[in-house]
Amino acid sequence: MSENTQISWGVVIHGGAGTLPRERMTPELEADYRRVLRESLLAGHTSLTEGGSALDAAEAAVRVMEDSPLFNAGRGSSFNYDGFVEMDAAIMDGSSLEAGAVAGVRDVRNPITLARRVMKHAPHVFLTGSGAEAFARTQGIHSTEPEYFYTDRRWSALQRVKEQEVTEGTPHPPDTTGETSELDDEEEGSNPVFMGTVGAVALDCQGHLAAATSTGGSTNKRWGRVGDTPIIGAGTYAGSRCAVSCTGWGEYFIRNVVAYDISARMEHKGLSLVQAAHEVVMQLLEEQEPGTGGVVALSRDGHIAMPFNTPGMYRGYVAEDGQVWVGIYEENPLHR
Amino acid sequence: MSENTQISWGVVIHGGAGTLPRERMTPELEADYRRVLRESLLAGHTSLTEGGSALDAAEAAVRVMEDSPLFNAGRGSSFNYDGFVEMDAAIMDGSSLEAGAVAGVRDVRNPITLARRVMKHAPHVFLTGSGAEAFARTQGIHSTEPEYFYTDRRWSALQRVKEQEVTEGTPHPPDTTGETSELDDEEEGSNPVFMGTVGAVALDCQGHLAAATSTGGSTNKRWGRVGDTPIIGAGTYAGSRCAVSCTGWGEYFIRNVVAYDISARMEHKGLSLVQAAHEVVMQLLEEQEPGTGGVVALSRDGHIAMPFNTPGMYRGYVAEDGQVWVGIYEENPLHR
Repeated sequence: MSENTQISWGVVIHGGAGTLPRERMTPELEADYRRVLRESLLAGHTSLTEGGSALDAAEAAVRVMEDSPLFNAGRGSSFNYDGFVEMDAAIMDGSSLEAGAVAGVRDVRNPITLARRVMKHAPHVFLTGSGAEAFARTQGIHSTEPEYFYTDRRWSALQRVKEQEVTEGTPHPPDTTGETSELDDEEEGSNPVFMGTVGAVALDCQGHLAAATSTGGSTNKRWGRVGDTPIIGAGTYAGSRCAVSCTGWGEYFIRNVVAYDISARMEHKGLSLVQAAHEVVMQLLEEQEPGTGGVVALSRDGHIAMPFNTPGMYRGYVAEDGQVWVGIYEENPLHR
Repeated sequence: MSENTQISWGVVIHGGAGTLPRERMTPELEADYRRVLRESLLAGHTSLTEGGSALDAAEAAVRVMEDSPLFNAGRGSSFNYDGFVEMDAAIMDGSSLEAGAVAGVRDVRNPITLARRVMKHAPHVFLTGSGAEAFARTQGIHSTEPEYFYTDRRWSALQRVKEQEVTEGTPHPPDTTGETSELDDEEEGSNPVFMGTVGAVALDCQGHLAAATSTGGSTNKRWGRVGDTPIIGAGTYAGSRCAVSCTGWGEYFIRNVVAYDISARMEHKGLSLVQAAHEVVMQLLEEQEPGTGGVVALSRDGHIAMPFNTPGMYRGYVAEDGQVWVGIYEENPLHR
């Protein structure tokens, strides 16, 4: 990642660090992913050009990915052990440090919008489970039928993981992409944990930052598991210096307080955004558990970082002039 | 807080930053609080002298406070809007960065022990609601009847807050101590938000640190609200440099990633434990919202910090020689 990639204002997104291996990515599927990433970025850009805030833009970009069945969030969420989707999301306003988060919601189309309502209208920051759904009803967010969230791909992934549990006699490590069904056993065995999640960070023309992240969590998760996504500081953080949205093996992101640590290394250690994000993702996380995920991050002065220690990460950014860049595997962004 | 308070190994605890105002504290009640704080510290000390780890000691100290009806955790937990207790807890091992957390559990006597089982036996870090309770059953932790958690004091607090909502026509700010019933309207009006929660940090003779926090959350909380306590980095954190347990207005602790920020200021900024804890509690939090709470913290070299920006905080520590100090209001610890 070049230090030279800088924008005046715009949006940076990810659609998860758990990409399909390149050899199994068909041209058609790759085109689909790139199209939705582009739509997400343009939704964020449109929001900003119409006078929206960084919060508006981050929410708009995430909603597009939640509405697509391609990503593990909203409509395309993974199924838990009991065959339900259980979605988590968080949003944070870097200019006020206000935040909203939800975990374990089963019937909300756009958890990121619910998280924003929590931020704005609830007396609390973090709501969970049926309580969060009851709060959604007070906000006019209707219940969505389970059929909306059904995709063959995620359902097959759940069945595969469950069959492996029976065969192997032990719980299968969490799979956080739902990609399992498209990998053969050998490939899966060599890289048993993949990651999902979608997220966006935005910088508006007033210099305000925001971060938003949404996920269906890990396939076959149990016991009301909550990952890093809705945890302010772990999967999502925005302050005055930077905004960060994470994707990866949630447990490692929680234990390392990844999103906030990037901000802390800028504030307390004097690092640039790119240096700070690189240290955390490519050194700290990589040393603990290779291949745990990635982040997108944006600083107040418009620098962009998109490091990942996995084979790929769906990602992209849009600058103030509407120019869009999207990438999946190792690809160099435009130097601006 | 003196920089001189240093131990070789031991335990530091808090029983919440939401103390009764000094003028309403009876000698009998104060003696009760001091007795349980002392028992908690001695339980932690006994664990360490018997060869227990910092994790063992932190868990043991917290269990004593969970078992007492005096504190807003375990048995003495506040009631939520629906008249149930909903408890949160987290524990973290500073030597491995392993962590376990639970939120919204209603039928577990010692949520801190459940959090530790999550750390050790679950494939996830953070379990919530009925899922966390189902996991408890797999660990042989039986369901406890609601009657166990009933205390007149917390029930009266809930009724008072609900009556005020009706009278004032707006939701009452979260009360996180359950102390409301013991304050008259005037006093309450002048300081509407109080804090509860119990926690412990420990350092064992191997130089390992651990942190543990447990809470009943805020009286009259709704919609599955989760505060900072079970959020690794916000209410609870332990690493190689320090261990921190927080108590206060949870939403501010979440947004400021308080527990981890103390560690980050030591690591990235080179501050001492006492300096870092002071900056975060007495400057950062105090500037945002006066009277939000406090922390107990312990560094790897045995320095202790117990800053709070409220009128009081139930707190204390025990050193390697078994010498115990406890305090409630502004009181200077022993200089060792």
